[in-house]
Amino acid sequence: MILHGKSLLAGTTGATGGATFRAVNPATGERLAPDFHEASGAEVARALDASAAAFAVYRAIPAAERATLLETIATEIEALGDALLQRAKAETGLPLARLTGERGRTCTQLRLFASVTRDGSWVDARIDPALPDRQPLPRADLRRMLLPLGPVVVFGSSNFPLAFSAAGGDTASALAAGCTVVVKAHRAHPGTGELVGGAIARAVAACGLPPGVFSLVHGGGSTVGLAMVKHPATTAVGFTGSHAAGRALFDAAAARPHPIPVFAEMSSLNPVFLLPGALHERSAALATGLLGSFTLGVGQFCTKPGLVFAVRGPDAEAFLQKLADAVRSAPCGTMLTSGIRESFLVNRLQITATPGVQPLVAASGAADAARTEAQPTVATTSATNFLAHPALATEAFGPFTLVVLADSLAEFSACAAALEGQLTATLHGTPADFAAARPLLAALEQKAGRILLNGFPTGVEVSPAMNHGGPYPATTDVRYTSVGTAALLRFARPVCYQDLADELLPPALQNANPLGLLRLVNGQPTRDPR
Amino acid sequence: MILHGKSLLAGTTGATGGATFRAVNPATGERLAPDFHEASGAEVARALDASAAAFAVYRAIPAAERATLLETIATEIEALGDALLQRAKAETGLPLARLTGERGRTCTQLRLFASVTRDGSWVDARIDPALPDRQPLPRADLRRMLLPLGPVVVFGSSNFPLAFSAAGGDTASALAAGCTVVVKAHRAHPGTGELVGGAIARAVAACGLPPGVFSLVHGGGSTVGLAMVKHPATTAVGFTGSHAAGRALFDAAAARPHPIPVFAEMSSLNPVFLLPGALHERSAALATGLLGSFTLGVGQFCTKPGLVFAVRGPDAEAFLQKLADAVRSAPCGTMLTSGIRESFLVNRLQITATPGVQPLVAASGAADAARTEAQPTVATTSATNFLAHPALATEAFGPFTLVVLADSLAEFSACAAALEGQLTATLHGTPADFAAARPLLAALEQKAGRILLNGFPTGVEVSPAMNHGGPYPATTDVRYTSVGTAALLRFARPVCYQDLADELLPPALQNANPLGLLRLVNGQPTRDPR
Repeated sequence: MILHGKSLLAGTTGATGGATFRAVNPATGERLAPDFHEASGAEVARALDASAAAFAVYRAIPAAERATLLETIATEIEALGDALLQRAKAETGLPLARLTGERGRTCTQLRLFASVTRDGSWVDARIDPALPDRQPLPRADLRRMLLPLGPVVVFGSSNFPLAFSAAGGDTASALAAGCTVVVKAHRAHPGTGELVGGAIARAVAACGLPPGVFSLVHGGGSTVGLAMVKHPATTAVGFTGSHAAGRALFDAAAARPHPIPVFAEMSSLNPVFLLPGALHERSAALATGLLGSFTLGVGQFCTKPGLVFAVRGPDAEAFLQKLADAVRSAPCGTMLTSGIRESFLVNRLQITATPGVQPLVAASGAADAARTEAQPTVATTSATNFLAHPALATEAFGPFTLVVLADSLAEFSACAAALEGQLTATLHGTPADFAAARPLLAALEQKAGRILLNGFPTGVEVSPAMNHGGPYPATTDVRYTSVGTAALLRFARPVCYQDLADELLPPALQNANPLGLLRLVNGQPTRDPR
Repeated sequence: MILHGKSLLAGTTGATGGATFRAVNPATGERLAPDFHEASGAEVARALDASAAAFAVYRAIPAAERATLLETIATEIEALGDALLQRAKAETGLPLARLTGERGRTCTQLRLFASVTRDGSWVDARIDPALPDRQPLPRADLRRMLLPLGPVVVFGSSNFPLAFSAAGGDTASALAAGCTVVVKAHRAHPGTGELVGGAIARAVAACGLPPGVFSLVHGGGSTVGLAMVKHPATTAVGFTGSHAAGRALFDAAAARPHPIPVFAEMSSLNPVFLLPGALHERSAALATGLLGSFTLGVGQFCTKPGLVFAVRGPDAEAFLQKLADAVRSAPCGTMLTSGIRESFLVNRLQITATPGVQPLVAASGAADAARTEAQPTVATTSATNFLAHPALATEAFGPFTLVVLADSLAEFSACAAALEGQLTATLHGTPADFAAARPLLAALEQKAGRILLNGFPTGVEVSPAMNHGGPYPATTDVRYTSVGTAALLRFARPVCYQDLADELLPPALQNANPLGLLRLVNGQPTRDPR
């Protein structure tokens, strides 16, 4: 497959002539052809103006047609075959098996959102029929449902070149909600972006929809990305990445004449608390499980456990010993980009160079910088020291975790109280441990968007009950998830219709309930006609 | 009833010694005793620290106890009897009949939110049971529900001293969601705030809850109010008022180290489109209805129709003639404060002094400044002129409306496209009008949070299907309503539990479904146990 390296602007390709960049194979350092051409300000505006024009059409098509679009995108992605996987592998250094799985997850996700939009009940339809004889005043007929927001800007993420990039969760949920989308392809995998973007554009055309429903532009976050966020037609932003970048987008969106929501999923330490019974009962399994989780994908998951709490004593010693043994023989791995590797080294150093932090173990193999490798490492510190140095709660995005040794369970609670917002928090324990840990559980509920018992936080299911979000700085909007079917609620707004004749109402609110939705009528859920 | 003039800080009264102010009776200019004492920075912090401490308790009590609190507040407010109404009348100039109705609405609203929290299904419980045998990977048991955000800061509004102030919709929905509340009483009606705040504090005590569940402070928006928004314990803000004040709070909240949501309901012109058939058929009824709506409460409703569109011709002439006749004999009315009156005069002058704007009519009686009166007035302009002068789309909060005369229906659409975000948009028409106006209806759906046919936007029902919100600048968060039962969604966030033993789960998510909620199990709604 031959890549052209240009932005995809509402069914046409962008211009050349401006700045260019190339993807780099992190496993070899090779600069990959072709040159990619950054979008100009005029091209960003063209993409978003076309998105706004297409939205007027796309918002009004039946939900079933939106579902067909999502399914067609999945089919088109699958039709890209191995070429997509090979290009993604070259651009990210991720293994083929992982990318194959991620492609499956991407297509499953598209089809799941298709089923949600086809089912339709997510629009939360509510009908309060007129009460013409009510005293002292009659009640009008009121009907409310969720409608799509408008053009959504999506930033491809570095660590999920398929599942959270051009056709990832943000794009799928925005399209499912009835929004049009403009993606900024991640600069580390622009070829993957072009391939997937082309698949989406073909699906849009095959479904007979206006080409402005989808565009994909190339360029930097602080130039092209900020211009996208500031464009007047943009109504919401989806982002997964660093805290600095996410906060910059959030600030720009909040400073607009008309502020818009930014759903930035940014940073999380995903603390794991090892309760005494569990540590006594299964320190080896905990050590193996932790190693697998914090080195999965070379530690480049937003749910990587970067903080582990244990109470000092012989069981903790045994656990640390087993963890050290396991880590020592773990392989080094190629990170996504040299920039990510550099940040990892800087942030890890900031932690390990803090007074009171001791190295525990590093993998025995050396990390090869030419292969962008990182070495799995673990350090330890005391809970007192952790509480004294807030900078220890810095995310080092990569294969590193810090084990915090407490003198007592009471120190667990103090540490939990000191934590910032998290995507996840995990407790390992026995039934007796958990019975005693209810206050800790309650404290963690207020710090994290997902609470796990006896598991590891990496691995985020795409399902109705998932929540992938959390208090700031885990995300910029604690009220929403970016994974799972509830993710489309980010891109919708309620509208109430008062005293509209049946034929003027959207089908979701018509008397006969032609879509068969579960609706709240007079506050009671029912699928009956009205 | 004797007022003490101090803040109510978690069951105690605040200090004296700082700045003081008095309420003013707008109908007489009288400065009303007693002095009210502004809260110090330390007192603001005390209220919010107590709110955070109380939240740890209040968030965890059964929903039925939250419902009882709301009902007890309603009872305590009713027990204040005429003293409350008399004080509110003196502080606002609003008639007793209106205040009696507003008290009824306030208590009905509290009881409605009590029923929502008692019913419990609003928490959107979702259960994805474990699939241990799934290939290639098993699925964990995932259960998600909405939990309360934390301490909420509520700003009392000037124009609803009961229904949108200390115990108004924001307080009721925050308490119903499980949040604790700190109110900043509006400076125009601090005595009403003290009385209602005292009723709430008594209800909190009667229910055996920590006094920090509710506090009420006195002071200015740019001092005390901003300090409340910036306090680290604050997790959300509810506000109804001017665009300038709402935006200042939004900006402060967005600039926090940990940004928080602000639900500011700010400004809206509530455009009304008179379609040709309606104008031909019932110009007199439209004129009377419009007069009633734009002068209701002396024009001081956020849903006041401030823009009316009609197509030139004999029917429009007849309508304007009837409107002029009706307005001429309308009485002047006392506004809420001299500051609001002054803003009204300034904003109205900005509109009427714009080139191409003609006065149509003013009420024949003169407005008495000593009684803080405003005179109902109407001006007209052309659609061309309206489009040429964006400043004509300024809200003049008071009894004024601008009639825009279009040359054609096509100009209606151009004007609709030029509008900023609105709380409401209204069409008056015949069935034939509406059949032809579908594109206009679609355009207005994207501009407004509520669409009305053949009605007037003043009068906002408190019910499940209401939406009182809209795109910026109508509000700062188009995704939420501030009126109706969906308002409590503003103050909640999802949390997902992975593999928790049944007894560790909140009752809403336990297998037996002990609360009898409607839950999404495997994506399907059911009340069955799991």
